[in-house]
Parts: sequence; C-alpha cells; structure tokens
Amino acid sequence: MRNFKKVLVVLSPILICGAAPPKLSRYILESGQAYANLKELTDKGSRLSGSPGAAQAVEWARKKFNSYGFDKVTLQEVLVPHWERGSKEEARITSGSSGKLHIAALGNSIGTDAKGIEAEVIEVSGLDDAEAKAEILKGKIVFFNGFMDPTAMDSFEAYGKAVPQRVGGASVAAKFGAVAVLVRSMTMNHDEFPHTGVMKYEDKIQKIPAAAIATADADRLSQLLKTKKIKINLVLSAKLLEPVKSFNVIGELTGSEFPNEIIVVGGHLDSWDLGAGAQDDGAGVVQSIEVIRAIKALNLKPKRTIRTVLFMAEEFGGFGGAEYGKQAALTKEKYIAAFESDRGGYSPRGFETNANEKVLRKLEAWKEDLAPLHADFIKKGGGGTDIEPLGVLGAVQFGLYPDSARYFDVHHSKKDSLEAVNARELHLGAAAMAVLVYLISDEGL
Amino acid sequence: MRNFKKVLVVLSPILICGAAPPKLSRYILESGQAYANLKELTDKGSRLSGSPGAAQAVEWARKKFNSYGFDKVTLQEVLVPHWERGSKEEARITSGSSGKLHIAALGNSIGTDAKGIEAEVIEVSGLDDAEAKAEILKGKIVFFNGFMDPTAMDSFEAYGKAVPQRVGGASVAAKFGAVAVLVRSMTMNHDEFPHTGVMKYEDKIQKIPAAAIATADADRLSQLLKTKKIKINLVLSAKLLEPVKSFNVIGELTGSEFPNEIIVVGGHLDSWDLGAGAQDDGAGVVQSIEVIRAIKALNLKPKRTIRTVLFMAEEFGGFGGAEYGKQAALTKEKYIAAFESDRGGYSPRGFETNANEKVLRKLEAWKEDLAPLHADFIKKGGGGTDIEPLGVLGAVQFGLYPDSARYFDVHHSKKDSLEAVNARELHLGAAAMAVLVYLISDEGL
Repeated sequence: MRNFKKVLVVLSPILICGAAPPKLSRYILESGQAYANLKELTDKGSRLSGSPGAAQAVEWARKKFNSYGFDKVTLQEVLVPHWERGSKEEARITSGSSGKLHIAALGNSIGTDAKGIEAEVIEVSGLDDAEAKAEILKGKIVFFNGFMDPTAMDSFEAYGKAVPQRVGGASVAAKFGAVAVLVRSMTMNHDEFPHTGVMKYEDKIQKIPAAAIATADADRLSQLLKTKKIKINLVLSAKLLEPVKSFNVIGELTGSEFPNEIIVVGGHLDSWDLGAGAQDDGAGVVQSIEVIRAIKALNLKPKRTIRTVLFMAEEFGGFGGAEYGKQAALTKEKYIAAFESDRGGYSPRGFETNANEKVLRKLEAWKEDLAPLHADFIKKGGGGTDIEPLGVLGAVQFGLYPDSARYFDVHHSKKDSLEAVNARELHLGAAAMAVLVYLISDEGL
Repeated sequence: MRNFKKVLVVLSPILICGAAPPKLSRYILESGQAYANLKELTDKGSRLSGSPGAAQAVEWARKKFNSYGFDKVTLQEVLVPHWERGSKEEARITSGSSGKLHIAALGNSIGTDAKGIEAEVIEVSGLDDAEAKAEILKGKIVFFNGFMDPTAMDSFEAYGKAVPQRVGGASVAAKFGAVAVLVRSMTMNHDEFPHTGVMKYEDKIQKIPAAAIATADADRLSQLLKTKKIKINLVLSAKLLEPVKSFNVIGELTGSEFPNEIIVVGGHLDSWDLGAGAQDDGAGVVQSIEVIRAIKALNLKPKRTIRTVLFMAEEFGGFGGAEYGKQAALTKEKYIAAFESDRGGYSPRGFETNANEKVLRKLEAWKEDLAPLHADFIKKGGGGTDIEPLGVLGAVQFGLYPDSARYFDVHHSKKDSLEAVNARELHLGAAAMAVLVYLISDEGL
C-alpha cells in the first residue's frame, strides 16, 4: 500500500502536467479571486507614485502574498517620484468667448501661481506642427490638438502616435517662448473627462505648466479658434516634491527542479490619481497575483520559479522595473521569461513577445492550450515597460495582449474605476497568463 | 478626354476592389453610424413581438433604409406572436422565511389569477432531475436551478446547456402535476436581475405559469431549501393574445453584374421588454444596416446583391426568418450566403459558419483581410436562427462571432440598454461583416 502511494506521488506531476492548462483555466473561471482582489485594491482609492495610497497598496499586497502562503515574500526598496496635483486646477476662457474647460495637470508638470497664467491660445496638431509654427508661439498657451486615429485597428498604435505631444509638448513649446500647454486627452471618445499622463521636461529648457484637456472641450476650443482670438487663464496647483522611498512587492512559487530559473509575471502597483486605476494597472496586479495563487491552489508544482513582481512608479517612467532589473543583474538567477499585464483586464487575444524563431516554434505548439481561451494570437513586440530591463538579462518578454477597443475610454481618467472592469474578462486574461507561464515553468524555453 | 474618362470608369471598380476591405474598416471606424442608429432605435424603448414598440421600430427602419437610398426597400408581412407581461408579477415567500424574489414571467407563459398560486417549492437541477423527482412534484412550484457553467470558455456553450430547463421546464413539471415553475436566470453573474426568455408549452400538457428568478434570489432560495420547507405565492399577469400582423424590413444594394445572386445580412428587430434590446439584437440590426450603408457611401459597386433583412419575432421562435425563407423559396433568386449578427455588438473574433471545404479554402485566403480587425477566427457551426431557412436554399451561413464574455451579463434583462454597448466594439463588428460580405459579393463563393 505504501509503495503504491509512492508510485502515485511520483507519477502525479506527470499526470497533472498534461492536464494543467485546461485545469488552470477552469479553476480561474470558476474560483478566480482576481476580481475580488481588485475590489479590495481599488476600494482604497488611487495609488499615485509616492502617495499614501501607494504605500497602503504595498502593505495590502504584502499581506495578500503572505495570506496565500507564497514563498519568499519581500519588499524591494525603490526611490520614486512624488508629484502632487494639489487642490486647484482651472482653465477659464477670458477673451473671445467664456466658460471653463475640463482639464487635469499632466504628471510632473509644475504649477502656476494663484492668479494663474493668462495668454492667447495657439492650436497645433502635434510636435512637428509646433516646430513649424515656432515664430508665433512666444508668450502663448500652446494647444496640442493631435488626435488618436480612430482608424487604427489597434488602439495602442493610435496612442503611440499621438502621445509624444503629451510627453514632450511642453518643452518643444517652451523652446519657442510659450508660457503653458494644453494637450488633447488621449482617448478616441468625445467626452468631458480629462485623461492625465506623464510629461517630461527637457534639460535646460524653461519649465512651463502642462495640462490635459477633455476632448469635448478640445473640439469646442478648436472650433472657436477658427474665427476668434481666444485667451485662457490657467491655474494649476501641481508641484513636484522630493523623491520618496517606496517598494516593489515580490513573492514566488519556488521551482521544484530548477529554482534558479526565473519566470517573472507582473503589473504595476501605482496608478494615476484621477480614478482608481482599476484597468491601469489594478487588473495587471491582480492577474499577476492570480497566476501563482491558482497554480499553488491546484497544487501544481512548477519546475522553475514563478515570481510575481508588483512594480512601483511605472507611470512616471518605470522606476520599479528599472530597480528590479538592476538588482536582478547582481544575482546569479537566470531569467528565462518575463510577463507583463499592463493593457487592461479585457478579454485576452494573446501575447506580444520578442521571442526568437526557436521560442516562436515552442509557442506554436502551445497555441492549442491557449486556443480555448481565444488567446492564441502572437504578436511581435516588446512586453512592457517594467520587464524591459529583464530582456537585457536574457528573459524572453511577453506582454498580455487583451482586446484594445475599450482601454482608452477610461485610461488615466476618472472613469478608470472598478465598474470599468468585467470579472469574466479579467479572469480570462489571468487564465491565459497562467497557462503560458505554467507551460514555460514546466517545459522551459 | 471623353475616352480617357471612359477608361477610368471601366478600371475603377478593379482598382477599388483590392483596397476595399481596409477602406471599409477605416470608414466604419471613423464615420460609422451604427452606434448613432442604435441610440435612435433604443431611445424608443423595447420592441417586444406584436407590441407598439415593435411596430414603431419597423417604421423607423423603413425610413432609415429610405434615407440612405437603399434599393428596393420593402416591408414583408409576417404574422407574429403577441404576448404581454402585464402590470404585475410577484413572488413572495409565505412560509419558512419571508421576503420577495426578483422574478419576471417567461415569454409565452400564462398568468395566474389575482390571488396567485401558493405552493411549496421543490428544487431541481434541470430537466433530467425533474424527471427523477417526478413523484414529489405534484402540487408544487418547481424551482429549476441549473446554472450556466462558468468554466465553459464560450459562454454560448454554457447557455446552450442550461437553457432547455427554461424552454421546456414548465411542461416537464406540469406532466408530473406541478402548478408553476421558477427558472434560474441565464447568466453567470450573481445579481438581482431576472433574465426572461421564451418558453414553450408542449401540446396536450397542462399549461402552468413560468417565471425567471434572479440568480441572487435563486441562490438564497436554494440555501433556504437545504433546511426548510418554503412556500411561495406567485402572481403573474402575463397573457398570450391573438397573433399580430407585423413585418420584416428589407433593403438592398442591387448587384451590378449578378443581381440575382443574393447575400443576406441581418439581425432581428424585436427584443425582450425588460430592457431596450441594445445588445440583443439592436446591435445586429444597426450592424446589418451599416454593412450596406458603408459599401454604398464608399461608392463600392458590389457585383452581387447585398440585402439587409431585419427579421421580426426571432425571440418567440424565428417567425420573421421562417417567413423570409418561405417567400425566398418561391422566387428564382439564388441565395449564396447569409449573415446573421445576434450575439451582441462586442469585439469581433470571427465567424461561425457551415461552409464546406471548398468555401473554407476561400475563407482561408480572406483571413488576411479580417486579421487587422482580429476577426479571422472561423468556427464550425450554424449562423443563427433567422438565416437557417436560407441554408436549405443553398446559402452558406455565417454568424458574426463576437467575444462572448459579457453577453449574458445583460441578455434578456433590464441591463440590456445602450450603456451596455461600446461604440468602437459595435463598429469593429460591423466592419468585420462588411469586409467579408463585400469580398463574397465581389468574388462569389
């Protein structure tokens, strides 16, 4: 009897392995905790880098990892930007028309004094157009009105093309003497929600205030500017404070055969402050937790280590990811793959990856495990900001690639709340990651 | 000069053809009118078969077709069921506990008298379980509590397995002397919204009242029944009235070379009465209109006739589809393909089809035109209830196959309102249909 049991124990990992992908999917769809965890995480509010909300989220995640009994739960220190919106932001038309515009300071922007900045508005369609109109920008508020192209099939492509004006618009305008910038919100919708996001000042160029303007107001302003001179008074109380000590949160299932071979799966714990950061990137956080929670709950024993890393301060430029990569380079660990979920918890389509031909052939064979989830689309690309430094260490990068139709409806705005997330879609995404992560942990790359 | 123009005119259809699929997609994503049309359609309220709302929708659609200048706009008469919910429906626990349950009569159900039916409740897990418990059903209210399996990757599969208890539960229970049935709502969610839907009485079996019960209440009731005898008083004012004259709405772009070869594209105009029928099937209606509107607006000249048909009374059993098929059989028209969109206006994944090997090879070649929309998944199956009769006439059937994660959140409930529809997803689905419909119209099958 004892011997028979022993045989079973030896056999069981093999028996389980073949069936693991559908088992993981079914388990997560039936008993997934990602949505319940997302509710807990977002109930506490936003998690702006350096804020008390972010610190609270670190503590929540650490406790959550411990409650699930993950191996080696640690906090990894990382110095992060601390920027505050402050209590006031207002853009009022003072000449040529009247009324207020829905705006929100961009992350990193300086503020104005209490009186604000009053100046004439000049519209440009993007960075190139600003350069072309260099001569007329002096003393003006430059209104970057480049839009996200709705004809792009993948909305991330449209975002990629439109976003440089948000990140770099202020310095380009300031170079030519502008006094502030307003940037069209990064969404395809026509609505009254400003969508914030990071901006960056170039060295040695005057810093000027920068705010996002809701698309409905951008359209109205553009219409007014066709026939009139418009002046706006812009007040922003935003300010950049000293960097703050924060943390990446790390937990793992240590590999049973090759504990030194690491597969990272992560999302970023920080969010913008306007909403609750449910899709960006609460979804990625709870999916990354769910991957190892489900594998552990099913008593699957991964041969290689699967490590969930919740990165801090992605929104301000991947600070947590950079720190994790820096520390990883100092170890003797072998990073074989890294997964990031930072495109929302929508129904998964597949993965974006920088895999080479050999790995792509492995993926081809695994497609049948992803097909039941309709998540077998493989796209060439990088995996995401936070795992990029692990690419240098040899990890094949994978970005969960969900349906992109709805992401920019809510992205970086007040609308990014729990209500924007569908539990089943979130869990399908977690299942897709769990399946592929488990296959790699079992078979290697 | 005149000759040169003539050459251009001759060449242009060829030039346009190659580029048509991406042109159609971009046009619909940028200038689509499907969502605006859906707002108009749903603003008027629900469109229950035989109701004034349905009649109003017929008129709306006819005018819409004419406003777009479609060819041969006609109404096709069809006699449809006329069932009414009435003003009162209530299920109150009268013994063993207390409180009201969220219920909604099932379509076709008879009502009760004003006092209602009071009886003890017996829970069963489905039709088989009811048969097994035949001996204890006499005089009881039978509570069918079979649930939609959340581990099914495709939620329509889960629906297909759970729905027989809704359609046939009343007659099975009545056969054994039950006095009424309550059926667990067809959704994977735990919430307080009853989801209605059609039920059918078998000939020569006593008709007993049937209602859907919200899943939250079903779970509570099931919990109570574990330890107690529960009696419920059920009042329904539902009644079946005389059939009503109604219409399918038909418009087309007549083919330039093979006008007698027809491609049908349609959805159903009727809806349930609890919500506004935005996803079911307002989405399919406006997408089907959009297909030929966009092709016409781009001045693409389909070689074969593309006909939009808005079917009436699908919910009560495909009455409009049956009538259209019956009339079609009397003509000399050749039906080469039929498309139906009746699975919601979510991001398209591809198409379900009964295509044979030869046609599947054609589809394989066209996948590259659908891939940019991520709509190149081809699944074996039928196309849908309304186009099934056209299969008999030789039409290859295609059902738009959208992402199924969210459909049963809202299906047949109050939540099926415009807010449940995302404009971009709706337009992506319309684009996928337009691309494939146009390719078939141009190249044949």
